[in-house]
Amino acid sequence: MKNFTYYVPTKIHFGENQVQHLPEEVASVGKRVLLVYGGGSIKKLGLYDKVYNLLADCTIVECNGIEPNPRIASVRKGVELCKTHNIDVVLAVGGGSVLDASKAIAAGACSDEDAWELILDAKKIKAALPIISVLTLSATGSEMDQTAVITNPETKSKKGFANDLLFPKVSICDPTYTYTVNAFQSASGVADIMSHIMETFFHHEAGCDISDQVAIDLLKTCVKYGPVLLDEPNHYEARANIMWASTWAINGFLVSGPGKNWSCHAMQHILSAYYDVTHGATLALLEPAWLSYILNDTNKDRIARFAREVFNVEEENTYKCAQKGIQKLYEFFTVTMKLPKNFAELGIPNDANFKELAEECVKSRPGGKIGGYETLEANDVFEIYKRCF
Amino acid sequence: MKNFTYYVPTKIHFGENQVQHLPEEVASVGKRVLLVYGGGSIKKLGLYDKVYNLLADCTIVECNGIEPNPRIASVRKGVELCKTHNIDVVLAVGGGSVLDASKAIAAGACSDEDAWELILDAKKIKAALPIISVLTLSATGSEMDQTAVITNPETKSKKGFANDLLFPKVSICDPTYTYTVNAFQSASGVADIMSHIMETFFHHEAGCDISDQVAIDLLKTCVKYGPVLLDEPNHYEARANIMWASTWAINGFLVSGPGKNWSCHAMQHILSAYYDVTHGATLALLEPAWLSYILNDTNKDRIARFAREVFNVEEENTYKCAQKGIQKLYEFFTVTMKLPKNFAELGIPNDANFKELAEECVKSRPGGKIGGYETLEANDVFEIYKRCF
Repeated sequence: MKNFTYYVPTKIHFGENQVQHLPEEVASVGKRVLLVYGGGSIKKLGLYDKVYNLLADCTIVECNGIEPNPRIASVRKGVELCKTHNIDVVLAVGGGSVLDASKAIAAGACSDEDAWELILDAKKIKAALPIISVLTLSATGSEMDQTAVITNPETKSKKGFANDLLFPKVSICDPTYTYTVNAFQSASGVADIMSHIMETFFHHEAGCDISDQVAIDLLKTCVKYGPVLLDEPNHYEARANIMWASTWAINGFLVSGPGKNWSCHAMQHILSAYYDVTHGATLALLEPAWLSYILNDTNKDRIARFAREVFNVEEENTYKCAQKGIQKLYEFFTVTMKLPKNFAELGIPNDANFKELAEECVKSRPGGKIGGYETLEANDVFEIYKRCF
Repeated sequence: MKNFTYYVPTKIHFGENQVQHLPEEVASVGKRVLLVYGGGSIKKLGLYDKVYNLLADCTIVECNGIEPNPRIASVRKGVELCKTHNIDVVLAVGGGSVLDASKAIAAGACSDEDAWELILDAKKIKAALPIISVLTLSATGSEMDQTAVITNPETKSKKGFANDLLFPKVSICDPTYTYTVNAFQSASGVADIMSHIMETFFHHEAGCDISDQVAIDLLKTCVKYGPVLLDEPNHYEARANIMWASTWAINGFLVSGPGKNWSCHAMQHILSAYYDVTHGATLALLEPAWLSYILNDTNKDRIARFAREVFNVEEENTYKCAQKGIQKLYEFFTVTMKLPKNFAELGIPNDANFKELAEECVKSRPGGKIGGYETLEANDVFEIYKRCF
């Protein structure tokens, strides 16, 4: 078990109608609110009106139209609004994209630097406005972490950044707000959650019993309740368990001990910088392709454990067991959860320049390679992409 | 799943030599330190000297001699020292007792009321000094929660209280500081941890998959590593896993969803107010006695699940399976972990007035009963005590 620092100060109000806490939580930090949201879904949900009713005493300035892969232009617009209107608190109402944009806005609002500079070097973030969120989508876990991902179309880059000042002060997680999330987005969310867990579960560190076992539990929770989201979108327990799993997949608990060994997200980010593909659905293809590519004598025990404990694979031969588990994972995503079966279905043409994408994927990383669970060079990334064709 | 609020802002530095973070953490809140500790064990550990070396720039005032069941007189002494010396931060170096006393001191230092009044009505706590802890014993979980228990010998009461202002700001959890904890105290700690988990795991709320499964994992971690503490006291992974399990057993995560349904701690507190018995060792007798007493047709499935998943009991009949699991639990504590087999061995005479103790146990509680997993009246508590003779 590696040494670690665990620090997650976000307060979570979880459950139906917990939005009732919004007035007291906002009042504790100010009266001038930047309301950040995406398209019209929060209006259809009735959440937009509810927020206005609950915050009748506040001045609300709107920053809407945040994109699914939020862009730096939206962040800059939000920063400008904060400075012009002397905003006290950023209120993110939406999913991970709205939350990520809000984090960048909260940092940019307290700095003279351009927001993209802060994203490129998050140590430059010395202050941030408090962030409060009302979550409407279970996927990224951004409601309880200090990280965000912003896309810059000019430089074709999708950049993750982190700073402890960016933990939401409060997140309101009401599973009923996710009832209207459609089957594809629900399934992509589950794939995103599971990928966060798998990126951590596959490590080489001994003695991380608690993290390992909780990772398995969260994966089993996804496998149990994920399909329910498609069949019974208004199933409270299913939405609630997926929402809570989503939060714990990536809030710092699972990496406490194993450390961070991520691989697939790097391969995903470069794809979505070039193609407007859904994050989770892309990971649903990359995760099994990656596992099948890296499977070897050293890691076969761990992948077989995943197969046995998450998918109940019964197979004595460790190598075969691991292979069967990977196949089960692919089938879970593409058959059970009805996600795209290959890059073409996802929206990435088969004649895309995967060699160049693979090279670009690794070039900005330390030593020009992905140093995750198993080290990946450009050629490895290319081979993994090929398995997703 | 019940609605809940999860809020645990304590920063944990976990692992060997993480005490190196002490200077920066203390510096972030001040220079005048009240060092709270118990007997001489931190001197034997070398931790006392280390703290003085690391905090050479600070003014340190000592409050030592905190008892295993910390008493209000020690708290009052600490409060007085804080006020006299204008203390900025309370540094608790020790186990749960030292931490609990430090919480009460931190609250008392910021109030004109007598500390016992704050403990009797924790809503009166409106401010508290920041608390930093260096943990030397895995048991109570006080390093990452907002609760404490203080004993008042004058009124023969042992009173728990909670306030969000009492979360330690930082806790340093170095498993190597627990190497010298003797077999009895190590075993009592494991029993305390397991009792915290069981107090929550036994509930009637549906759909709490994540909490339930993590509870099982933490129990399995205790069953796996607990015996190692007795055989190889310097086993890092064992000490580390027990320490991390201890923190998560009671920091608010497990009750998120099921809510709080505790039973055995109430029965324990009254015993240790009258007899100077070790908290965990007493719980090790009460938990199996309580489970065997309450076992019925409604709760047999859950107790059987505990038996199957924690102790690998293979028995088709649910009722018998539950019974076997309870027996395994008793044997784990008293045979494997070598804890006392009954009240007499523990230090409570068989001619103690258990009827009166049982009545006193329930009388201060809402409705004059313990409203935990299964409602317990005075007579039930008496019957459970009898099973521990």
